[in-house]
Amino acid sequence: MVEVAVDAAAGHGPGRLALADLAASVGAGDLLTDPAAMEAYRRDWAKDPDVGMPCAVLRARSPEQVVEAMRWATRTRTPVVPRGAGSGLSGGSSAVAGALTISLDRMRAVEVDVATRTARVEPGALNVEVKRAAAGHGLWYPPDPSSFEICSIGGNLATNAGGLCCVKYGVTTDYVLGLDVVLADGRLLRLGGPRVKDVAGLSLLKLFVGSEGTLGVITGATLRLVPAPPPAATLVASFASVADAAHSVVVIGASLRASMMELMDNAAINAVEDLRPMGLDRSAGALLIAQSDAPGEARASEVEAMARVCERHDAIELFTTDDPEEGELFCAARRAFFPAMERRGSLLLEDVGVPVPVLPGLLEGIARIAARLEVDIPVVAHAGDGNTHPIIVYDASDQVATDHARLAFGEVMALAISLGGTITGEHGVGRLKKTALPAQLGEDVMDVSRAIKAALDPLGLLNPGAVL
Amino acid sequence: MVEVAVDAAAGHGPGRLALADLAASVGAGDLLTDPAAMEAYRRDWAKDPDVGMPCAVLRARSPEQVVEAMRWATRTRTPVVPRGAGSGLSGGSSAVAGALTISLDRMRAVEVDVATRTARVEPGALNVEVKRAAAGHGLWYPPDPSSFEICSIGGNLATNAGGLCCVKYGVTTDYVLGLDVVLADGRLLRLGGPRVKDVAGLSLLKLFVGSEGTLGVITGATLRLVPAPPPAATLVASFASVADAAHSVVVIGASLRASMMELMDNAAINAVEDLRPMGLDRSAGALLIAQSDAPGEARASEVEAMARVCERHDAIELFTTDDPEEGELFCAARRAFFPAMERRGSLLLEDVGVPVPVLPGLLEGIARIAARLEVDIPVVAHAGDGNTHPIIVYDASDQVATDHARLAFGEVMALAISLGGTITGEHGVGRLKKTALPAQLGEDVMDVSRAIKAALDPLGLLNPGAVL
Repeated sequence: MVEVAVDAAAGHGPGRLALADLAASVGAGDLLTDPAAMEAYRRDWAKDPDVGMPCAVLRARSPEQVVEAMRWATRTRTPVVPRGAGSGLSGGSSAVAGALTISLDRMRAVEVDVATRTARVEPGALNVEVKRAAAGHGLWYPPDPSSFEICSIGGNLATNAGGLCCVKYGVTTDYVLGLDVVLADGRLLRLGGPRVKDVAGLSLLKLFVGSEGTLGVITGATLRLVPAPPPAATLVASFASVADAAHSVVVIGASLRASMMELMDNAAINAVEDLRPMGLDRSAGALLIAQSDAPGEARASEVEAMARVCERHDAIELFTTDDPEEGELFCAARRAFFPAMERRGSLLLEDVGVPVPVLPGLLEGIARIAARLEVDIPVVAHAGDGNTHPIIVYDASDQVATDHARLAFGEVMALAISLGGTITGEHGVGRLKKTALPAQLGEDVMDVSRAIKAALDPLGLLNPGAVL
Repeated sequence: MVEVAVDAAAGHGPGRLALADLAASVGAGDLLTDPAAMEAYRRDWAKDPDVGMPCAVLRARSPEQVVEAMRWATRTRTPVVPRGAGSGLSGGSSAVAGALTISLDRMRAVEVDVATRTARVEPGALNVEVKRAAAGHGLWYPPDPSSFEICSIGGNLATNAGGLCCVKYGVTTDYVLGLDVVLADGRLLRLGGPRVKDVAGLSLLKLFVGSEGTLGVITGATLRLVPAPPPAATLVASFASVADAAHSVVVIGASLRASMMELMDNAAINAVEDLRPMGLDRSAGALLIAQSDAPGEARASEVEAMARVCERHDAIELFTTDDPEEGELFCAARRAFFPAMERRGSLLLEDVGVPVPVLPGLLEGIARIAARLEVDIPVVAHAGDGNTHPIIVYDASDQVATDHARLAFGEVMALAISLGGTITGEHGVGRLKKTALPAQLGEDVMDVSRAIKAALDPLGLLNPGAVL
């Protein structure tokens, strides 16, 4: 083992002996070592060009295999990159040269327990599979990343993912009651359980949520479900300026409980209209799509109240509907945004957030950056919680354009920090935003984070190069 | 300083030199050293007879004083016990001989920011003061411990306190967006802020919530507020057996969103009726008090739906009202429970929780323990989330009774653990339940918790003897 450890320390990854040892302990059948076969497990949606070639990919079927793999990793000092569905946008599961990638994509069981109103899930289950299983019992798992049809619940837990309904229903961590985590040394921790209230000991569970695979490998979770909400009523409002829309969002948020409040700026509206014309007002400065899922009468009256707020903020056009299908058409416009952008060229997807009242300032600042650097930065925003997705579109074959895009990416994060915001509201830091993290958190918070990382993963084996 | 350190190590607390040094750095005016004056800061509601005499009590006015005090504590190796309103029930703020007690009771500013729907609070502010400040702007801070009129928000944060509305609205940690924490070495961490979504870095904020003063001293917080809910409609149902009531709770929880679901067993009903007769059915095995605060029509229909569930589970008497004041009368019956018990003798207040479906089993088990040990253990429960408060009543002047009470206290916790539950749902571990914690968490979780404690507080100065 010593010679292997030296190998790993030298960055060449484990030797043949060590890989044989791994195959023996987890079963050769679930271990990929052929570069061609491993190719599909090297990148996430951040499409990091600098990903390495893993020494192997374990397609785990059970927590026991993950335990064995981490014991082996500790014995051989081999770094490990945990991976879900690979739909991450920050490079959190990008492969590391010589490291073992543990893919949880085959562990996707979902069991709903109506009596405790919880779902027992394996990390590879897709968010949509959890939602469907819950719906089968009249229950609902709220967190809804835009990628909910293709992202894994394990990835959602690792990044503390958000989504569109967070403005009313909160984020992933608010729905986690129990967590099974395999530590770097192979110990399997079982934290929490199907209990709404449990304050026995430190909140380790909440620490692991959002730790992006740097503290442990999540092998199972108990999620809190809630009764399915009634169908939502929808409001669509167009404004001459993003500021008018943003101010409406602030006022609505202070008095009403929208279950969704999405904003698209002029560039985003036109990008969608180009892809699939649906009669959106191309001249509008911003489009606001809001919903209320309050029970009974309240639904319609809440949406009407939102409409009155938009009127007071000079909305150009106003449309409300109590018909779920009609409402869904407008949400489709919002969802069409990412596909629409992908045809535009290469993308740098931002995820900055600010306190809601600062939203107008953030959006104006982004427009200024776009103008100065001559890059196209359309914006969609989960406006109700101040989380925005400016998308930097550029021609990767043009070096100047590429440099400007990278510059803009950094400047948008710096702008968010200067406005008291965050560099990432729901996608995670991963590898893409790592260098910007200290500017937001400060040295003391970074120190404490590193101390906790060292306490749980003293050899630094888990997801090296991510977050910290 | 060395001689002082030795002093402290020997358990005698800091010497005169060191206390003069402390007075110089925090201001003598805010420092109590007279035993008579310190008496009021030695105990919380756990009334631990073994509390020590502090070397001093700092009644902090500012975060800067807390920073200075912790720097001094690190220099002189003096243990520190943080303290809020002293209404804790687990001895988490019991004074330690020779230690410095830092009381936050004078730091109680509350500022509501409607635009971000947040409250910026100092730790000494009472929960009720936060609620009132929010209500002044049509907003609401949900967490509502029964002690909300006398407990501090800092204590709520330190214990991740719960309450009656948690069944629908969650617990304290779900409403914390920002936290200022002074570490053992005096560094002041500023975590999070007025942002609903922020996943930049490890969730240190959530780790500090519920850490009971063992990782740092909370000097400020940013709390999420929500629009005030409409007045609630109320259901009161009596049942022949606790099991019938508990089964109704399970069914209601799976399909409706009660904003409160409280259960009182026969002994609790009679204790309240003895104190203030309000016509409760003394023969009932259990009383269920549930509310819905759904908007508009939905409120009444939700309560009617709950009533139908209770009918199907053989409710003896059913009463529903849409009148908030009438509903409040029944909540008063529930709240009268603790005062009623305090006249009965000495109390050991339990806080065990289980998955909701196991509630009947827990309640039956508690009755068996009470019968076998011949102690009186009436129970009230936040039934909707499986959190129960069995209260062991005994005559402290009778040694046998006292021994039996202590036995029962331990057996109830062991029972909860055996049913997949927790020894504390909302009160915290403190010093009272410390010895029972490993049985629930297991050695691995204890190890990791200790490793994190050591990483943040290497000298073990913060709240020694609590939790871990």
